[in-house]
Amino acid sequence: MEQSEMLQFLQQVAQQKVSPEEALVKLKNTGFTELEYAKIDTERTVRTGYPEVIYGAGKTAAQIVGIVQAMKQQKQPILATRVTAKKAAAVLAQEPQLQYDQIAQTLRLPAAQIEQNGEIAVVTAGTSDINVAEEAAVTAEFFGNRVTRIYDVGVAGIQRLFSKLDLIRRANVVIVIAGMEGALTSVVGGLVDVPVIAVPTSVGYGSHLNGLTPLLSMLNSCAAGISVVNIDNGFGAAYNASMINHLAQGGKDE
Amino acid sequence: MEQSEMLQFLQQVAQQKVSPEEALVKLKNTGFTELEYAKIDTERTVRTGYPEVIYGAGKTAAQIVGIVQAMKQQKQPILATRVTAKKAAAVLAQEPQLQYDQIAQTLRLPAAQIEQNGEIAVVTAGTSDINVAEEAAVTAEFFGNRVTRIYDVGVAGIQRLFSKLDLIRRANVVIVIAGMEGALTSVVGGLVDVPVIAVPTSVGYGSHLNGLTPLLSMLNSCAAGISVVNIDNGFGAAYNASMINHLAQGGKDE
Amino acid sequence: MEQSEMLQFLQQVAQQKVSPEEALVKLKNTGFTELEYAKIDTERTVRTGYPEVIYGAGKTAAQIVGIVQAMKQQKQPILATRVTAKKAAAVLAQEPQLQYDQIAQTLRLPAAQIEQNGEIAVVTAGTSDINVAEEAAVTAEFFGNRVTRIYDVGVAGIQRLFSKLDLIRRANVVIVIAGMEGALTSVVGGLVDVPVIAVPTSVGYGSHLNGLTPLLSMLNSCAAGISVVNIDNGFGAAYNASMINHLAQGGKDE
Amino acid sequence: MEQSEMLQFLQQVAQQKVSPEEALVKLKNTGFTELEYAKIDTERTVRTGYPEVIYGAGKTAAQIVGIVQAMKQQKQPILATRVTAKKAAAVLAQEPQLQYDQIAQTLRLPAAQIEQNGEIAVVTAGTSDINVAEEAAVTAEFFGNRVTRIYDVGVAGIQRLFSKLDLIRRANVVIVIAGMEGALTSVVGGLVDVPVIAVPTSVGYGSHLNGLTPLLSMLNSCAAGISVVNIDNGFGAAYNASMINHLAQGGKDE
Amino acid sequence: MEQSEMLQFLQQVAQQKVSPEEALVKLKNTGFTELEYAKIDTERTVRTGYPEVIYGAGKTAAQIVGIVQAMKQQKQPILATRVTAKKAAAVLAQEPQLQYDQIAQTLRLPAAQIEQNGEIAVVTAGTSDINVAEEAAVTAEFFGNRVTRIYDVGVAGIQRLFSKLDLIRRANVVIVIAGMEGALTSVVGGLVDVPVIAVPTSVGYGSHLNGLTPLLSMLNSCAAGISVVNIDNGFGAAYNASMINHLAQGGKDE
Amino acid sequence: MEQSEMLQFLQQVAQQKVSPEEALVKLKNTGFTELEYAKIDTERTVRTGYPEVIYGAGKTAAQIVGIVQAMKQQKQPILATRVTAKKAAAVLAQEPQLQYDQIAQTLRLPAAQIEQNGEIAVVTAGTSDINVAEEAAVTAEFFGNRVTRIYDVGVAGIQRLFSKLDLIRRANVVIVIAGMEGALTSVVGGLVDVPVIAVPTSVGYGSHLNGLTPLLSMLNSCAAGISVVNIDNGFGAAYNASMINHLAQGGKDE
Amino acid sequence: MEQSEMLQFLQQVAQQKVSPEEALVKLKNTGFTELEYAKIDTERTVRTGYPEVIYGAGKTAAQIVGIVQAMKQQKQPILATRVTAKKAAAVLAQEPQLQYDQIAQTLRLPAAQIEQNGEIAVVTAGTSDINVAEEAAVTAEFFGNRVTRIYDVGVAGIQRLFSKLDLIRRANVVIVIAGMEGALTSVVGGLVDVPVIAVPTSVGYGSHLNGLTPLLSMLNSCAAGISVVNIDNGFGAAYNASMINHLAQGGKDE
Amino acid sequence: MEQSEMLQFLQQVAQQKVSPEEALVKLKNTGFTELEYAKIDTERTVRTGYPEVIYGAGKTAAQIVGIVQAMKQQKQPILATRVTAKKAAAVLAQEPQLQYDQIAQTLRLPAAQIEQNGEIAVVTAGTSDINVAEEAAVTAEFFGNRVTRIYDVGVAGIQRLFSKLDLIRRANVVIVIAGMEGALTSVVGGLVDVPVIAVPTSVGYGSHLNGLTPLLSMLNSCAAGISVVNIDNGFGAAYNASMINHLAQGGKDE
Repeated sequence: MEQSEMLQFLQQVAQQKVSPEEALVKLKNTGFTELEYAKIDTERTVRTGYPEVIYGAGKTAAQIVGIVQAMKQQKQPILATRVTAKKAAAVLAQEPQLQYDQIAQTLRLPAAQIEQNGEIAVVTAGTSDINVAEEAAVTAEFFGNRVTRIYDVGVAGIQRLFSKLDLIRRANVVIVIAGMEGALTSVVGGLVDVPVIAVPTSVGYGSHLNGLTPLLSMLNSCAAGISVVNIDNGFGAAYNASMINHLAQGGKDE
Repeated sequence: MEQSEMLQFLQQVAQQKVSPEEALVKLKNTGFTELEYAKIDTERTVRTGYPEVIYGAGKTAAQIVGIVQAMKQQKQPILATRVTAKKAAAVLAQEPQLQYDQIAQTLRLPAAQIEQNGEIAVVTAGTSDINVAEEAAVTAEFFGNRVTRIYDVGVAGIQRLFSKLDLIRRANVVIVIAGMEGALTSVVGGLVDVPVIAVPTSVGYGSHLNGLTPLLSMLNSCAAGISVVNIDNGFGAAYNASMINHLAQGGKDE
Repeated sequence: MEQSEMLQFLQQVAQQKVSPEEALVKLKNTGFTELEYAKIDTERTVRTGYPEVIYGAGKTAAQIVGIVQAMKQQKQPILATRVTAKKAAAVLAQEPQLQYDQIAQTLRLPAAQIEQNGEIAVVTAGTSDINVAEEAAVTAEFFGNRVTRIYDVGVAGIQRLFSKLDLIRRANVVIVIAGMEGALTSVVGGLVDVPVIAVPTSVGYGSHLNGLTPLLSMLNSCAAGISVVNIDNGFGAAYNASMINHLAQGGKDE
Repeated sequence: MEQSEMLQFLQQVAQQKVSPEEALVKLKNTGFTELEYAKIDTERTVRTGYPEVIYGAGKTAAQIVGIVQAMKQQKQPILATRVTAKKAAAVLAQEPQLQYDQIAQTLRLPAAQIEQNGEIAVVTAGTSDINVAEEAAVTAEFFGNRVTRIYDVGVAGIQRLFSKLDLIRRANVVIVIAGMEGALTSVVGGLVDVPVIAVPTSVGYGSHLNGLTPLLSMLNSCAAGISVVNIDNGFGAAYNASMINHLAQGGKDE
Repeated sequence: MEQSEMLQFLQQVAQQKVSPEEALVKLKNTGFTELEYAKIDTERTVRTGYPEVIYGAGKTAAQIVGIVQAMKQQKQPILATRVTAKKAAAVLAQEPQLQYDQIAQTLRLPAAQIEQNGEIAVVTAGTSDINVAEEAAVTAEFFGNRVTRIYDVGVAGIQRLFSKLDLIRRANVVIVIAGMEGALTSVVGGLVDVPVIAVPTSVGYGSHLNGLTPLLSMLNSCAAGISVVNIDNGFGAAYNASMINHLAQGGKDE
Repeated sequence: MEQSEMLQFLQQVAQQKVSPEEALVKLKNTGFTELEYAKIDTERTVRTGYPEVIYGAGKTAAQIVGIVQAMKQQKQPILATRVTAKKAAAVLAQEPQLQYDQIAQTLRLPAAQIEQNGEIAVVTAGTSDINVAEEAAVTAEFFGNRVTRIYDVGVAGIQRLFSKLDLIRRANVVIVIAGMEGALTSVVGGLVDVPVIAVPTSVGYGSHLNGLTPLLSMLNSCAAGISVVNIDNGFGAAYNASMINHLAQGGKDE
Repeated sequence: MEQSEMLQFLQQVAQQKVSPEEALVKLKNTGFTELEYAKIDTERTVRTGYPEVIYGAGKTAAQIVGIVQAMKQQKQPILATRVTAKKAAAVLAQEPQLQYDQIAQTLRLPAAQIEQNGEIAVVTAGTSDINVAEEAAVTAEFFGNRVTRIYDVGVAGIQRLFSKLDLIRRANVVIVIAGMEGALTSVVGGLVDVPVIAVPTSVGYGSHLNGLTPLLSMLNSCAAGISVVNIDNGFGAAYNASMINHLAQGGKDE
Repeated sequence: MEQSEMLQFLQQVAQQKVSPEEALVKLKNTGFTELEYAKIDTERTVRTGYPEVIYGAGKTAAQIVGIVQAMKQQKQPILATRVTAKKAAAVLAQEPQLQYDQIAQTLRLPAAQIEQNGEIAVVTAGTSDINVAEEAAVTAEFFGNRVTRIYDVGVAGIQRLFSKLDLIRRANVVIVIAGMEGALTSVVGGLVDVPVIAVPTSVGYGSHLNGLTPLLSMLNSCAAGISVVNIDNGFGAAYNASMINHLAQGGKDE
């Protein structure tokens, strides 16, 4: 509750329009739905502009079903990430109107058509980075962004990247997804004039250290305008990119 | 050179308006000024929307002077970061019209008044993070952004943060700068609806590992909408924030 | 054997009340029961105030059964932690009066009602931290403490935490259990006036490094009053919290 | 502000005893004193039971002086840690009534006699750990605890430890401070029935990794009842121990 | 396209021999075949002297089949590495003329006899390094080099190495493959007068850290003339060795 | 071949007692038996006093059988370590006179009674360290040493260790095997006057880092007289201890 | 001594042309000059084709002078690397005919004109990498190679690299030297058809980890044909490149 | 006090030959001299066969002087290690009869001639390892061992090692000291039949990680019979070697 709102509200208490007990409830309002194992953050859209998304990796199918049902009651849009095919099957048995995307490993409740404005480019260095890229793309679309997918343009054959540069430069934000040494990030960063969000992937072996190598590489990029999210975190990159794209669609005040 | 431009250009060659030799120079145009020890990227503003900034840490005072002089000839705006007081003195002896900021450790050529639009909040957890914060703030101002400084609001006394929340929420982008365990990032990330750029600092000791601890912490934030730059990289955060703020000022096409 | 006791004892030897041979046995008294593969520390309660607890992870079902039987003969209370469902089944086949808790992964011999005094709060950041939390809660109850469970109040939706603050502040000790970046620890630490024991969990991915990130984060907390135990070590946190709570119940001399 | 307080307070607003504007100030009350570079947490004693302590390492002498003066105005007790001899001299030139302890590297404002109740044992493995130990001891005394110092009783000559065991067992909490491999922690932990707070120190070389080795060792102790703070963090250990000792002095409700 | 070529080409445009549209296609020529999930770099042989090799680890059998078919259409030689027996079976079901090598884990299209010139020695420290060695050997043969295999000559029994020294010294390049501590590399490096390419393997346990130990060891070799590739990267070593051997066969200009 | 031997030998050549060709064979004598995948070091006993032992972990059952058969032909004593139950079964099907020890994971050819002289103590901190301890014990017995097993005497219940001290002090060398934090090593090291060989084990979790924690701890022991081998390397410790014990049995010259 | 040589030599012994004593000296010939603190490897040129180079970092000025004098007596060419300006001054006071290069930090004895054949390209990403580059360039020239220097062509402004591509492609070997994230390596590796030797530099900060980041990045390059040497090891890269270039000049047999 | 001794002693109490009070003192006998900052372990020679050695690194000159004086009073032999030249000067001003060795960085009280029996070989890979080697050599001589120094025989010029092999093989124990990659250890380990104690040194740069690389390398040696001490720990290696050599001189009972 911001300062002006609160002053208004306290004036209502002073004017007896609101009882102290009601006021207490309001001021201490938890803003969440309580399950046995979770507290669903129902005020998140108000507070951060985005609904809560279910992170499926640490939860059982039963827990996901429970959260989905609670969110459905509150008419919230639903997206769950990191849901394996096996866990998805168990959830779908209970909630068949959800849709599963095996590459992106997401479950979604198909909303009324989401309007998609502004463009986010999702660029990968290799074929093996596509799972992470689809997690990003599906998330970005869920949040109302248009997505351009440009896959397998790593720098070992740099002509592939140059041939797609016009496409990439059309976007308001670029998500670059790369395993190995992550060099694509710096090359793209040096060629565009919009923010680049880098996602290291766990694709590699040996001294790749499950993605630490491209993570470190991206954090030390010689190109400016690059920020980084956790290894394989396609969701986080898309969330961030969506915020930026929405700002570009008319600023935060719209 | 984008596709449509190049077609136009090649048509001029076909029409004899441009000679093959001129065309070669144009197509192979290096877009940089060559010094003995550096190649100044004079086309960067065109390509990425931002002029080149001099990273002072790895260069001698003489090299900085050389680059400054080359940039002055091309009427480029000038900012140098990571310049120690001692190195700055040596540069200023040669280029006295530069201005040195001891906290931010920057050298600037005072341009005609830069118009500053849109707001970037620079938030620190502690007093010791202020050097990095000022590097960010000075850089953001150099690139034409309005900056709100909110320092020493770490979560150990969380009421300090809440009292400044209205200020922070006014910004288009928030830069959160924190050493220790970097927890401020997640708390801010959960309370705002704009992108947060996190800067871990090397402020700490022991298992802090010179900033690796807040870096890892920020990359694993439970709040969405956070992306991360290198330890102590105030410049990079500001560059990134500036790109986002400019998008919010009317999109990339302006 | 403390100094005064030993003097008394030696005087008994001098007075021929105790033979040198008996004295030798007493002074060299091993204070443990010897199995082929283990030496059960039967004097631990005397020495540290707590009975030995069986750490199930590195032992076979047969070894656990053997130790349980030896402890039963000595009328010791029995708790085994880190027992998988499969191993538990094998143990229960031999020792059916034990009780298994699948979430906490513990086996217990239901004692005569344990009196539970003073309160320990067990707080988690997320749903996925509940296994570790239950290991802590069950252990704390076994050692005679009252436990308040407060789950899924991570800082991404900080209003959830504030709504439970009264509950948390009622405790003598707070155990904070968090994966991801562990920021909840610092926020709680800044809001309570009792010791906080932090338990990092292995819940996360990528640069989370199986729990090293929240471990480092907690060790570098900007809030004072926090100490840390090993990753996923719910048992250790509860043991420690119990010691503190018992001190608060009337000091160590009771 | 807790729930019951707030209800009372809102009733006063309803009864016109407090105006909405006053209420706003109260509810938004920042609880800190704002300097240019710091926000001093003046409500910390109320909230956590302890005054703010100045962490000297990241601050200039001038900043320390400024904070000291602000705290003096509010009649707060003053302790600054990690103050080098050189920085202390600069502070003392401005604030001569402070007292400097060169071994502990602390600055204190000598309060009226602090009553010291209950006992905390500060135990070190070696001579080189004494600096950290004194930081802990001075802090504990500042917070009103009696301190027993037992130095240089590392396990290489374990008879030294046993000869001091009676002394150690008298305390309500034991702080064990060790560099090298930190084995003393486990041995003490197995011999006492009170909480042990372990402080790894940076004393060692080579694979000691500036204290990471004893830190890891202490986190993996085979003895229960041990929790750990950051490398060289004598202050944190004492703060924690003080909280526990105060609980033992009559519980948190006194 | 090099400078002289481009001048010629632009002159053809000026002379109307090439239309601007054709020129555009040529200058923007992508040089790759586009599949849904991959962009096959068909110009690689021209650019780097070597055809693209399929890295099988991150790809499904279906993707490998698709790439193989695209490459067959372009008459490219085919080699796929890191193909497990199971994945190979699935590929062979579709493309039965490929040949699988179970030790090297490679799939090949048997070309018309490849001429093999110059000699590369593949030397291993132990029996367990043979898989990596065969990946290297098969790759080197695929690229037209003669390979001498010298296995299990680690330094614990150094007479085994000396007895094979004449064989090793006959080669133009030596690939040394070793797990454990990788000491063989330095000993060989001190005894030959040709480049040594070192391949650390993941053979070992404990502090071997899955190959990081020999990797670090090889990078710090006291012998000169050694360069290093990633852990288990037999392919990369062979590719590199082949380039060197081909230079020795008559230089790059032949 | 040592200097005096070689002079003698060259004199025989000069005296025509040995032909140059014979001499060549002798001087270039490889001292190993060559299999396709291995070179068995048949001179190791001469050179180092110990026969080659088969490290089973990186080898197939077929390779182990091949090496066993080659060694049997040369009448060498046979020990294979790190042989899983499954692999052992496959080897035993071919070589039924071998004996398998499931705890130690070793295969042995029962030799004529090996005389066992001098005593090696094998001491473990916990029950879970017994596998490694048995690998050490079986190896030491194979090399002709008497072994005293003292298991589960970790420092959390230090009276268990003291009650066995007489036994431990009887040995010429002590092998201390410990996981967790490895503190037992330092305590034993401070109590005995013979060399201690420390073996860290992978028994632990979280920040134990699969044995790196006790490894680092042991390397930084405050007690002198301790040296360390790789994590879980029971074989290496026993080999080393055997060398020392044999020296104590009459020096190396016997 | 190779097999055929040794047979010849033994025949001379049999024919009394060489006495056994002479033979012993020859067969045991140490091939080095013994100083108190060093054994200079005077046979290295014969064995590896290259003279020994003095690594100055770990040696005192006096030790360098001693080694220089011993090498001068044997008419060996002299190069010392990693000699600081201060140490160089002390050496030059004794050996004034040496020449010091302050950027490369080398000392050389100017030989009669060394013939320089074949070309090695030394390419750096930034200005700060020039010290390492000059160490490489001076070393390569010392060993008789022609060197092309191409500095400051990092990928943030990739047009700088493309404008120099013709120059780079002319070389037989390319040394790529880069700090930050080292992405230049992969881009160059994808554009040339000769071996690339990558040298990570310690230029960077924060998560750059003193060069570990580009080291890891280079080891995981998506481009083939790249091998890597230690951080800042310009000498090692040049040594390696020289071996390759010499092979290209006519093979190893010339 | 061992069991038989204690029985005897208790019988004396029973027989009134010893009073209970005297017995108490004896049984609780601390066995150390207490200074303010240190407890000197005066029983160490009895318990471990070796006097306490002063580790100078963590102590002030005044503390070293104090300990030296206490030990002189008890007629103990005196050795202090890790004493810098500056600290040594301050100590010598107080205790001029001590002798300082600048290379080994040791202070000694010249005892009556120590008899030196049996031989320990101290072998280094390079010239820069000599400081550590001399710490080892001086320590070994202090403990009554004969020392053979063999320096700068690293494997890059392996003929240097072979020429000294007879010397090395004469010893009862070999200490191998190496920085860089530490390969010398494995080569020596494969050539001798006595225990090898490996000492990694901090000599190296970049990925050498201040000695972690040779440490890991030595722990993973393919040669058996090797155990390892901490980086640069010449003292520890010598202490260990001395124990072994003394066993070889006639067993532990002499």
